[in-house]
This record gives sequence, C-alpha cells and structure tokens, in this order.
Amino acid sequence: MAIPVSPLAVALPELPTIAGVRLGAAAAGIRYKGRTDLVMAEFAPGTQVAGVFTRNLCPGAPVDWCRAALSGGVARALVVNAGNANVFTGRAGAEACRHTAEAAATLAGCEPGAVFVASTGVIGEQLPYERITTALPALHAALDAGGWEAAARGIMTTDTFPKAVSVGFEIGGVALRLNGIAKGSGMVAPDMATMLCFIATDAGLPAGMLQSALSDGVATTFNCTTVDSDTSTSDTVLLFATGATAHPAPGEADEAAFRAALRQMLHDLALLVVRDGEGAQKLVRIDVSGAVSPASAHRVGMAIANSPLVKTAIAGEDVNWGRIVMAVGKAGEPADRDSLSVGVGGVWMTREGNVVPGYDETPVVAHMRGREIEIQVDLGMGEGAATVWTCDLTHGYIDINGSYRS
Amino acid sequence: MAIPVSPLAVALPELPTIAGVRLGAAAAGIRYKGRTDLVMAEFAPGTQVAGVFTRNLCPGAPVDWCRAALSGGVARALVVNAGNANVFTGRAGAEACRHTAEAAATLAGCEPGAVFVASTGVIGEQLPYERITTALPALHAALDAGGWEAAARGIMTTDTFPKAVSVGFEIGGVALRLNGIAKGSGMVAPDMATMLCFIATDAGLPAGMLQSALSDGVATTFNCTTVDSDTSTSDTVLLFATGATAHPAPGEADEAAFRAALRQMLHDLALLVVRDGEGAQKLVRIDVSGAVSPASAHRVGMAIANSPLVKTAIAGEDVNWGRIVMAVGKAGEPADRDSLSVGVGGVWMTREGNVVPGYDETPVVAHMRGREIEIQVDLGMGEGAATVWTCDLTHGYIDINGSYRS
Repeated sequence: MAIPVSPLAVALPELPTIAGVRLGAAAAGIRYKGRTDLVMAEFAPGTQVAGVFTRNLCPGAPVDWCRAALSGGVARALVVNAGNANVFTGRAGAEACRHTAEAAATLAGCEPGAVFVASTGVIGEQLPYERITTALPALHAALDAGGWEAAARGIMTTDTFPKAVSVGFEIGGVALRLNGIAKGSGMVAPDMATMLCFIATDAGLPAGMLQSALSDGVATTFNCTTVDSDTSTSDTVLLFATGATAHPAPGEADEAAFRAALRQMLHDLALLVVRDGEGAQKLVRIDVSGAVSPASAHRVGMAIANSPLVKTAIAGEDVNWGRIVMAVGKAGEPADRDSLSVGVGGVWMTREGNVVPGYDETPVVAHMRGREIEIQVDLGMGEGAATVWTCDLTHGYIDINGSYRS
Repeated sequence: MAIPVSPLAVALPELPTIAGVRLGAAAAGIRYKGRTDLVMAEFAPGTQVAGVFTRNLCPGAPVDWCRAALSGGVARALVVNAGNANVFTGRAGAEACRHTAEAAATLAGCEPGAVFVASTGVIGEQLPYERITTALPALHAALDAGGWEAAARGIMTTDTFPKAVSVGFEIGGVALRLNGIAKGSGMVAPDMATMLCFIATDAGLPAGMLQSALSDGVATTFNCTTVDSDTSTSDTVLLFATGATAHPAPGEADEAAFRAALRQMLHDLALLVVRDGEGAQKLVRIDVSGAVSPASAHRVGMAIANSPLVKTAIAGEDVNWGRIVMAVGKAGEPADRDSLSVGVGGVWMTREGNVVPGYDETPVVAHMRGREIEIQVDLGMGEGAATVWTCDLTHGYIDINGSYRS
C-alpha cells in the first residue's frame, strides 16, 4: 500500500556538516526493497554521548545494548537499521546487536562498546544481522560529512517524509552547530524518550552536561507529544558531541545557550514526528492552564490528546468541545466542571462551566478547517500549565495499521 | 449517515414481564426524527434501588440527580432520554433534571426525589426539557408491563441494535426474574459503571444488599470492557427491586443465587455493549494470567484492549503479536520480557520471551478471520489473572465519530 505524503510535511532543511561526524546509508535488504534501510555514522575520537530511552518494560535488544554502552562513556560509531525492530527476539536479539557492533567496531577501529545500535520496524522477527554485517564495509568506506540527508531517509519506516533540524549556537564566540534526525510515525507516545532520534554537535561538552541537557529538553518536547498513546519498545534519543571544533571552555551563559539550542531542536523534531503521525491530516496543539500543578496540566493535556473521540472529531472538523470536557474529566486530575473553560482557535466557547452566551461559532468553524488546530483549556483551579501536541485520528491510521505487516 | 447493524449483533431475547414494573417509550423529538427517544418506567411502591455511576470528574447533571436520589432510598419512576446528554449545561442542566422529575412525580404520585433520570447523547447543549414534560403524560398513560423491548430501543443513540437480557433465579423456591437493558456504543471505558444500564427484578431485596451485589458484579463485567478508552460523563447503572412477587426472606444460598444471576446479566449486557462498539467487526477477549496480582492483570489487559495498534491489527486480521508485547510493556505493571508468553486462539506463539520454534501459524490465521478473537497473555510472574473484552478499531469508528454532531 502506498502511503501518501502527510499534508503537514515540512521540507528538509539544508543540513551543514558537523565537524567530527561522517555518515551515510545503504540498501541492505533487511525488509524493504529499492530503498536504503541501513545507516552508519562514525564519530571523531573523544566524542561524548548522552541518551534517553523508552520506559516500556519490554524494550528491544538495541535499547539494552545502548544503555550498557552509555555507561562506557565513549562513542565512536552508530549503526541503525529500519524494517526490523529486533524486539522480543530473545537471546538472538542480543547476539544480533553484538555481531553488528563488532563489525562496526572493526571498521571504525574501536571497542564494540563504543558502537551504539538502534533498530526500528516489525517486532518479534529475528534480525537478519548478516545482511547488516555484509553491507557495512562498503557503507563505511563511503561515509561522508555530507551524508545527513541520506541518514534521515535511511531510518524511515512508515514515515512519509524525512525529518531533520539544524540549529546554530556559540560558545565563547565560536560558531557551533547541532544537527538532528528523527523518525516516527506510529507507536508514538514517548515516555522519557521518543522513537529514534540522533543528534550530533561539533562542540566539546562533557557527557554529564549533555545528559542533563538532553533529559531536561526531552521532558518538555518529545514527552509532550503523542500520536496514538502507544509507547514504543524502541524509543531512543542519542546525542553525540564530537568536540571537533575548538572553542573556549563553556561558561554559564554558553551552557544556557547550548541548552536553549538543543531544546529548540528537540521541540522542532518532536513536532515533525507528530506532523507525520500515521494518517495525520491536522497538527493539534493543546494548552492547559489553571491546573493545580504543571504535572497535573500535562496529564490533562495528554488525556485530551489521546482521546479517540476528540481526535476523530478534529478529523471531522467538528467543534465538539463536549468531548474535550469528557477527556478532562476522565484524566482523573483535580478538575471542577463548574470552573472549566474551553476554547478553540483563541475563541472561548465555554467559561466556568457554561456555554458563552451568543459566542460566534464562525471563526471557530473556520479554524477547524485549517491544518493547525489550537485547543485551550483552563481548569480554573491553580497556576499549573502545560502544552502538548498530537494529530487527528483518520481513516489513514486504520489503513496503515490494519495492514502493516502484509 | 446510516450506520449498518454490527455484524456482532445478538437478537433481542424474549423479555417476560417483571411484576411491579410498567414501562414504555415515546417520540419526544429531542434530537432524532421518526424514532422513540424518551423512556419512562414506573415501579411499585416499596421498590428498593441501587446504582453505580461514572467516575468521570465532569459528570452530567442527571448523574448528580441520581446520586442525590439514591440517598433518599425510594424509587418510584425512571425517565431516560436519548439524543442529548444534559452534560456541561451549568445551572440549566440541574433545572432540566428537576423539571423532568417533578413532571414524572406528579404522574406517578410520588416525591420528585423518588424519580431517577438519565440522559445520553450530545454533550454541551441545553436539554429541551419542555419536550419531555410535554410528552410524559401520554407516555405515562400508556405504560405497560410488556414495554421492555420498546424501552431497550428508546434509549439507543449510535447503537445499531437494542440490548436486553433476562435471567431467572429462585428465592425459597419462588421463581423470580431480572430484566436488564443497556446502551453503548462509543465513549465506552466504564470505570465503576457503564453507559446507561437499567435492571429490574420482582424480588424483594434491601437496598444495601442490592448495592453490594451491583458494585461487585460491575467490577468484573462492565469495568472489564472498553470500546475506545473514553470514559463517559453519563455512565449510569441502576438496579430496581420491586418486591412485587411474594417470596420467603432470602437465606445465604438465595442471596448467592441472586448475586450469580445478576453477575451473569451484567456480563451479558456488557458484552452486548462491546459487540456494538462503534465500528466493531470483531469481539476480542483478552485473558491475562501470571501477573503479580489480579489488579495488575486487569491493568495489563486494559492496556492491550486500549492499544490502537493492537485493535487495528485485529481489524486487519493480522497476527501482529509484537504489538501485544508492546502493550504489555507500556502498561507499567511488573512484567519481564523474558518470562512473557503470548497466544492467540489457544496457540502459544511465544513462550518465555522467545518465538515458539516452528509453531503452526495456520490455525492462528484462521482464528483471526473469525468474529470472536481470543488473546492469551501469561506474564510468568505470579498468580494474578483477569479477563477483559474489547472490539477492533475500524474505519467504521472514524466514520461514526468524525460526523456525529452533523
């Protein structure tokens, strides 16, 4: 089945090189025919690394591998395949990771523990790792600093467009850069992580600071998005800092600038994933205010964002705010029907438990016909606020997921 | 839009009369045209009542009314309308309940507090209660002990078939009976209650015992079902015992027999609601065993039952057990990938974290093509077990919910 490109797609930006990173993609024939499905990146010696991973309690073998590799503190290579998630494959899954890492380590001249691996695709089928180890030597020989677009395309599964963001920042007046690529597009309800996302910078920053900045950034970006409430077994975000561009030691202001740039990138990548949510026709932003705490606001927002009835109403361009009230009530967070206000596209339709008398539905109907929908909910209880993002639920989601394996 | 009758529909059974209950339906024109949408029942003096209601924190005005009426302990009448849920209608919502109850009380010769009201349909529109109070006198005059089928049809919204169950039992050798009617069909993830369900018996049983039996029965029936994870603001189950058939005081064995009959009825009604889940093409039973506790097994079962990816795979007749593994892992309950077993239709495809070597997929594929799907999950952790029910997620759900209000 050919899946049409999401109407919410964003064109791939220009992706400058990152000093200390060479990468590329190859067609290893793991599952797909006629497209690349294997990506490798090699990092300069001394590259620092940070990562966050799925909280799903049945994680894939590659997540286990990366968690162990992260404790080694050294990153020299990354190998990613699409089409097979290497999840729930028992002992064979761990073996496939080891064989892949050993092959990449030989090529990169490092220990296997300095190789990070990730897999995405079907769950429960053994990964034919020989296809990876067979394809790696030629792929490694062709690695290139300009390979970012190829890598963004090579990690796609049901994604309908490649996802990448590039952000510049400075440390001590030296221009530096972050490049990141990501893939979706279903089983997306990141919990401390996302689907696959790989980021690299030429800055020289210690692993502890990278980890702190990454964990903080993910909390308000990827972890505030959902496509279908299903948390993947493969969620992985890795951040590599090569240190290949010389710069002064970062001061407090520099660290803040790096954190801001990273957060911006994570935000942009997370929204690209939502824009390519399976079957998505509309991007939905939900602002919750007046909750008893930010965490409570977040949970209310996610209850709305995960409600099939809210999502199908948006797909039908139906201003059905009653379903938003229902979703607020089912979230289980402190809320009071009689202090609740709901708005769409900046127009408050209900205020403190009552329909706003004579409110004009015309601009709301026009807003619902657009591609980007904004929902405002004020609980009238306290000062807690949060913003989450999702997409609508359409026939496309059913089409894609009723026949994914076939 | 005409919604085709669910392929999982069950024919309405014969519904004998219940001594002490007269009921019927009328077309009050609340929302629908050319069909009944108003139901009234009158109960004999002395009727005892029990009820369970939605845990949604934004409940409808009728739920508030019923909770208050329940504390009065007397039930003489029930008024139900379809087409408008009278939810999130502020002060006007409570007024509509009061006017409706007063009109019914005048006709039944009782206090308004002995009248129970329920509403189902669109949220957030004021209930035109005058249409109800105008239609009630003629409806009351026509109430009949044989009106059960009319009542079952009169409370439908997007239901594609009427739902009723009749079960006999004995107390002290006297034959007694329970009749129950229910409606679905979306916003169904009952939490301590269901959508609308009304049950009556001619037995004479005290309210405390009725409440205990109802609460216990709902816990393992309605509260183990889900159509779309969305908990309604109107969920209401009411149980009326008229005492109109004379029988000896119930002993322990009699009470056990009554509880068993009630539980069977609640089970059957709950499954009728799932069989008419919006867009449902398949009924899905999920048996979870080996959990650390029954509550943990229940939460794992519901995580599977609410997973859009599991539900769309079932719609596509795809034996995609990897998604079941994902759902187990996202439930957040104690689970271990390496002790997890998954089966479909009685065939174990994975055992303790590995694919069963050479398992025969043929009977599994045949099972997936059927109307009733059975999933078995064993966590291999402890003795906790639970069974939950859901339906598949199809294009029909999107069709119905993208255009419900229009």
